[in-house]
Amino acid sequence: MKLSKMLINTLRETPAEAEIASHQLMLRAGMMRKMASGIYNYMPLGLRVLKKIEDIVRDEMDKTGAQEFLASAVLPSELWKESGRWEVFGPEMFKLKDRNQREFCLGPTHEEVFTDIARNEIKSYKQLPLNLYQIQTKYRDERRPRFGIIRSREFVMKDAYSFDKDYEGLDISYNKMYEAYHNIFKRCGLICKCVEADSGAMGGSGSAEFMVKSKIGEDEIAFCTACEYAANIEKAPSTPEHSEKEDLKEINKIATPGVKTIDELINFFKTTSKKFAKTLIYKADDRVVAVMVRGDREVNEVKVVNALGGAIEFDMADPAIVKSATSAEVGFAGPIGIKVDALFVDEEIANMYNFIIGANETGYHFENVNYGRDFEGKLGDFRKAVEGDKCPKCGKPMTMARGIEVGHIFKLGTKYSETMGANFLDEKGDSKPLIMGCYGIGVNRTMATVIEQNHDENGIIWPLSIAPYQVIVIPAVTKDEEQVRIADEIYNKLQQMGIEVLLDDRDERAGVKFKDADLIGIPMRITVGKKVKEGNVEFKLRNASNIELINIDEIYERVVEEFKKNNLSL
Amino acid sequence: MKLSKMLINTLRETPAEAEIASHQLMLRAGMMRKMASGIYNYMPLGLRVLKKIEDIVRDEMDKTGAQEFLASAVLPSELWKESGRWEVFGPEMFKLKDRNQREFCLGPTHEEVFTDIARNEIKSYKQLPLNLYQIQTKYRDERRPRFGIIRSREFVMKDAYSFDKDYEGLDISYNKMYEAYHNIFKRCGLICKCVEADSGAMGGSGSAEFMVKSKIGEDEIAFCTACEYAANIEKAPSTPEHSEKEDLKEINKIATPGVKTIDELINFFKTTSKKFAKTLIYKADDRVVAVMVRGDREVNEVKVVNALGGAIEFDMADPAIVKSATSAEVGFAGPIGIKVDALFVDEEIANMYNFIIGANETGYHFENVNYGRDFEGKLGDFRKAVEGDKCPKCGKPMTMARGIEVGHIFKLGTKYSETMGANFLDEKGDSKPLIMGCYGIGVNRTMATVIEQNHDENGIIWPLSIAPYQVIVIPAVTKDEEQVRIADEIYNKLQQMGIEVLLDDRDERAGVKFKDADLIGIPMRITVGKKVKEGNVEFKLRNASNIELINIDEIYERVVEEFKKNNLSL
Repeated sequence: MKLSKMLINTLRETPAEAEIASHQLMLRAGMMRKMASGIYNYMPLGLRVLKKIEDIVRDEMDKTGAQEFLASAVLPSELWKESGRWEVFGPEMFKLKDRNQREFCLGPTHEEVFTDIARNEIKSYKQLPLNLYQIQTKYRDERRPRFGIIRSREFVMKDAYSFDKDYEGLDISYNKMYEAYHNIFKRCGLICKCVEADSGAMGGSGSAEFMVKSKIGEDEIAFCTACEYAANIEKAPSTPEHSEKEDLKEINKIATPGVKTIDELINFFKTTSKKFAKTLIYKADDRVVAVMVRGDREVNEVKVVNALGGAIEFDMADPAIVKSATSAEVGFAGPIGIKVDALFVDEEIANMYNFIIGANETGYHFENVNYGRDFEGKLGDFRKAVEGDKCPKCGKPMTMARGIEVGHIFKLGTKYSETMGANFLDEKGDSKPLIMGCYGIGVNRTMATVIEQNHDENGIIWPLSIAPYQVIVIPAVTKDEEQVRIADEIYNKLQQMGIEVLLDDRDERAGVKFKDADLIGIPMRITVGKKVKEGNVEFKLRNASNIELINIDEIYERVVEEFKKNNLSL
Repeated sequence: MKLSKMLINTLRETPAEAEIASHQLMLRAGMMRKMASGIYNYMPLGLRVLKKIEDIVRDEMDKTGAQEFLASAVLPSELWKESGRWEVFGPEMFKLKDRNQREFCLGPTHEEVFTDIARNEIKSYKQLPLNLYQIQTKYRDERRPRFGIIRSREFVMKDAYSFDKDYEGLDISYNKMYEAYHNIFKRCGLICKCVEADSGAMGGSGSAEFMVKSKIGEDEIAFCTACEYAANIEKAPSTPEHSEKEDLKEINKIATPGVKTIDELINFFKTTSKKFAKTLIYKADDRVVAVMVRGDREVNEVKVVNALGGAIEFDMADPAIVKSATSAEVGFAGPIGIKVDALFVDEEIANMYNFIIGANETGYHFENVNYGRDFEGKLGDFRKAVEGDKCPKCGKPMTMARGIEVGHIFKLGTKYSETMGANFLDEKGDSKPLIMGCYGIGVNRTMATVIEQNHDENGIIWPLSIAPYQVIVIPAVTKDEEQVRIADEIYNKLQQMGIEVLLDDRDERAGVKFKDADLIGIPMRITVGKKVKEGNVEFKLRNASNIELINIDEIYERVVEEFKKNNLSL
């Protein structure tokens, strides 16, 4: 393609709306444009990258024997009411009505659709295992769309659903996807890590996320510094500390008027946050639940929901509920005499001595409280793991990092097949629910994440495998007939070789062309300049700083060499 | 792909919901499944065909230098309010609100989006001409979705938008699309005809539709029997007939109590419908309009709207409006004394003598009425052309047929660029509106239409270019080891040759396999049966009746021969 014919507008200024590198660079390089909050249009250059990622995904999925399918984006509410998720998604689901007032949504995910297809099409174990996937547009009305296409409202996902006759089969299907995902991200030039994820209380016997470490990531991950272990913070276990042993003192009620927060308490009692146990009140669907953790810890809500056996809605309780549970204003909750449906106590609390809690009476706290003697609850791991907590595999300390989730694989089990009646007849003729897995990749998000990992101050550095074009040929001086002629020649020959090549034939200074080539991130740059008189052109890799002077006849081989180095065929 | 591993359910019975061949066969062959009224899921086999059509479209578009783009499907209302089309689409537009109550629609078409992109990205004539296209999902909440994917509510369209600096440029862009469309439909194996279409009153200097003749078509087309002329009925001119000359008689009011319809009038006056002129009252936005045509003719509403210079809403007036315009009940309207904003008179009326009209008085008609003497109006061609009307090119009689529109090319001119301020600077530095064209292809509809044209009582007959698989290999007796081994061998070798091949390795009788192969329409069938003992296999083309007995070693060449015959490369 000749740049003079191409719709491309590069921006020198960083758009104010973009906070992170990938978002800034995609706008500056003219890869996409904003249509509305969290909704983008893909310009020709950006779309080429997106399609290449899709092709890699498709190729790796096909290799596993998965079959491509395409579901509609507009989905009837009936399916979602059947699974019970019509209300669960809340405002994140775009809902609409047709001219006959029938309710639909724009699919945020497709478990219901694929389960419906499976119950209609799969009759016998002979049809199993089966893996159906699609590369399709999904919709989530995010409360806070941000970071460009990392968190957008209309996005392309590859989602796959596996169907097996037993859990051994599911393990095989799951492992195939695990391998395929590794291959996909590797081929996209993305360095990512597979971390254990929480699989929820309902169904699900295993779950892992493919995370790209990034300071802008919305997920927190715990990594072991010594072994391979890594987990989403929701899943990572904490290690209960043991406080120094003390003799048990007598419990004592103290007037603490207006002293509510941990900081105020520290100040009042002149001690550290480790001497306090805080009690938080939650609303879990129609249950009221209290959770106790040490004063300096954070509750891990996912662990609490799992201990509850699941909850559709789980949130901090409002003051009215707190008051009715504790008979006190917010800030004085404690375990003694609390009226809740369940009291969960982080196991660390049982290792503390003579600590301070709220007295369930406005303006009062208890001091010298001890677990077992003064109160009891359901002990367990209910707090967020922190730096230094021990790796559950090898016992060495874990460290924390932020990550962007690009993929997720999940053993669903029979969650949807049981609810929706997706059964098959096994070898004995018995009807059994299908054993399902689901597997997702954020295609646009992958694109943005590759940029997060591959850029410098001058622009994007596309991996050769997904670059919009692989080579850019630049005649340095557009008025120099010989330079133009040789550049044309190289451009044409590379095209004939099946290479995707740009010719920057615009009437611009060489400096402008170099800046644009760097910004849009073309992996190989061939400059036809003064040295063409000696039969040489300049060859520069986007991800290297040196310029190679190469004989015109040998330039083609040099380009091919890069394909070989990257294990790409022509 | 081995059929035993594939999700395929063929149906022997014709589903009751499907009225036409393509819809029935796509369901029976397991190409798609209904999700909701007018909304379908594509099963693996159907999706392969859809993707192949998309690839042909993409290839031909790219050849013209058009650049692929991808707009969102969810579009902000602001753009549509700017163009004035937010209300125009009426209930056909799916509208929705996001969590912040902002209004959006699911794009039924994308003129506004592309005009918006153009006004932001195109600054200078140097960037022109430009053609942007996308292959994207569109939404129209049809009043009556039907015929499967011929008229559906969620569908894939290729839409392209050209931008030029002048009308000469638009002609070139338009002609390129015309050529590309011919190539696309030809490559898809579709026989279609390009017919002149109405380009509307507002903007638009040319418009043509690609029509596939079909008795289930929703469009009516006029064809010349002698020359190449063809037009949509909306556009086709009528030829005014001359009634036999008579002496003008004196106008006479006749009491016709309760006689309202043309049939009742024929009976009452004991004459033919050609002796009457009927007057129809329409509401065109806020204007009231009367249209007169001969008693046996039909009004061509598109011609009337064009004569009005356009109308957003155009419908038969309700009885209250009729009464206020005619001072009579419905059934007695006539031109004399009528109170309307415009009176359009089909030119044929001026060639009639002593005819009968409504008297604008309940229960009365006038007889012996003559145009010019008794009333006047705006004369023109306002009726639908019929069989026998003369071809505007050669004067020979035209004939009528029904057609399915698969493509539409349209010279928009400055309609959107002026309304939305999409301007560029020309050579002299003057700001001018971009000259636009728009070009659409219904991708799913093309798929269904190919089936309409290519099927028999046994199933679909895919053209080789878009067949989901090109060859199916069938071992006749699954228990025969030699047959199975040779079938496997042929299957593997064909795959290595890059041919898309199915192996029917299911444990079914040969008859069942043949029936399925015919139903899903695979172009070439290789049967490995008893004759394999003599080194031969059977080769059958889906679109031929004879079976060729071919030596195993020569079967590959026979397959390749078909690719050559169809001008397809391997």
